Amino acid sequence: MNKYCFGVDLGGTTVKLGLFDPEGTVLDKWEIPTRKEDNGSKILPDIAKAIEDKMTEKNITKELVIGVGIGVPGPVDDNGVIYKAANLGWGVMNINEVLGGLLQLPVKAGNDANVAALGEMWCGGGKGHTDLVLATLGTGVGGGIIVGGKIVTGATGAGGEIGHIHIVDDEPDACGCGKHGCLEQYASATGIVRLATRKLESIKGTPAADSTPLTKALAEGELSAKAVFDAVKEGDAVACEIADQFGMYLGKGLANIAAVVNPDVFVIGGGVSKAGEILCEYIAKHYDKYAFHGCKNAEFKIATLGNDAGIFGAAKLVIG
Amino acid sequence: MNKYCFGVDLGGTTVKLGLFDPEGTVLDKWEIPTRKEDNGSKILPDIAKAIEDKMTEKNITKELVIGVGIGVPGPVDDNGVIYKAANLGWGVMNINEVLGGLLQLPVKAGNDANVAALGEMWCGGGKGHTDLVLATLGTGVGGGIIVGGKIVTGATGAGGEIGHIHIVDDEPDACGCGKHGCLEQYASATGIVRLATRKLESIKGTPAADSTPLTKALAEGELSAKAVFDAVKEGDAVACEIADQFGMYLGKGLANIAAVVNPDVFVIGGGVSKAGEILCEYIAKHYDKYAFHGCKNAEFKIATLGNDAGIFGAAKLVIG
Repeated sequence: MNKYCFGVDLGGTTVKLGLFDPEGTVLDKWEIPTRKEDNGSKILPDIAKAIEDKMTEKNITKELVIGVGIGVPGPVDDNGVIYKAANLGWGVMNINEVLGGLLQLPVKAGNDANVAALGEMWCGGGKGHTDLVLATLGTGVGGGIIVGGKIVTGATGAGGEIGHIHIVDDEPDACGCGKHGCLEQYASATGIVRLATRKLESIKGTPAADSTPLTKALAEGELSAKAVFDAVKEGDAVACEIADQFGMYLGKGLANIAAVVNPDVFVIGGGVSKAGEILCEYIAKHYDKYAFHGCKNAEFKIATLGNDAGIFGAAKLVIG
Repeated sequence: MNKYCFGVDLGGTTVKLGLFDPEGTVLDKWEIPTRKEDNGSKILPDIAKAIEDKMTEKNITKELVIGVGIGVPGPVDDNGVIYKAANLGWGVMNINEVLGGLLQLPVKAGNDANVAALGEMWCGGGKGHTDLVLATLGTGVGGGIIVGGKIVTGATGAGGEIGHIHIVDDEPDACGCGKHGCLEQYASATGIVRLATRKLESIKGTPAADSTPLTKALAEGELSAKAVFDAVKEGDAVACEIADQFGMYLGKGLANIAAVVNPDVFVIGGGVSKAGEILCEYIAKHYDKYAFHGCKNAEFKIATLGNDAGIFGAAKLVIG
């Protein structure tokens, strides 16, 4: 008898849902809007209804469902208690109990970044590994730590908050978290634009500034992490220097993570990872310089599941 | 029927052994020399004989022994394979199998620093906690990471090598590992002496230098971490500045560890920890500055098991 499980990725505007078999095959995939009104009280009932409707549509009875995993944007402890999800309007709530009560099915909740790491381990860039660190380079830098195949949640759900590793002592700008010099300020999409802007300002008026396509991009308000790595691929020297700075900050940060949990693979995800393998080269070069010798043979891989990492990881949460 | 287990802490000159009940009571404790001749081939047979002799002495039959845990000075994987223990003369060896074969009892091996962390969690400064980081401040800085009550071994046994977190960018001196700017260079007993020496050189000839007892200690070759913290307790301003520097480096390092594994307690052990609670104050002050807000309520405690942490943790390895 075939068994099934559901993976849910709860975002601020959209809920992604997936129907999986226990081997990691996506049998169906769909989305519903995230209704945040009334302090987000409609969100879990909406998700329950979406899952029940899908079960009816596919003639799947409860006995055939292993459970429902869900990744949510906030700190979640090992019992499924979320402490705050400001952008959903939620206060403290036990998601396992509330959604499990609605569905009368086993439910397991986790933090979305951690759950994505589990997804990449199960079916993505980290497949075959059990000690993995996912670095998600998007607007910010998120992360997920997997040790022995399990998410490191941490005492207060802040495990894997690698974007807030302190990396620079004399940073004048504040990070979104209020500190100064967080990894996120240099290795996120926004951080790379900051590095590029600083670089272009420092070489203003020189032949190098005139020759790089990034000067034009800056003038036209189109400077982005993608523009930087596109220029790197064209061999632009200024872009390569910026990429090298980025690689130095991230390589240093990941080397420090390695001295704590010693993973066998780092998976690089998020929007910035669309730049591809070249990213890993810049990171690995500096990682090798800063890493403790016992941690040097870690591999660097690009995430492969994209926006689906969350539903994969959520499904894996209940498969165990 | 009472059950027993043995905890073994294998050091470079001495093997410490303990007989425990499953609740963590030490029933007996003794030592044998570490015989390193013939590539360390006598070490495990000596340990096996010491345990068998103790079982005979106490009339303990094999059926009553849960197992033997052993902490060893080198990287050990989850299967008990040690990859190198240069100062014992050992190459690659599966300790669980070799010692288990000699004793015909279940054996579990772990890295000594990691095992000490488990001991402090079980019966020491971290009792009652399951997400713990031990920072052992001795000649070097060692560490052990406990997540959900289990040691984080890492992919190649380098989990918890927190002494080699990169903390300073422009350090001219090399760390023992070959890198520059490792946490160990500032937070170990040796590191504190380095910080103190630099401080005293920078204030040479000033009234502050004349008034601190550390100037005399330096001149007499008696400058030590203990001398620094003794002077701190006397209210010496220069010593307090050195302690503050130490606290800044270690607080920053521990904050970075928190962004990875988010422990609920940091336990400070090793020779330096004999300075007592004042150490935690200097560390916590700076930790609070560098830690991600979700990690701020971690506690700081002084290790309580001293040199026995290893035998406690080793016994806990087999109790599970």
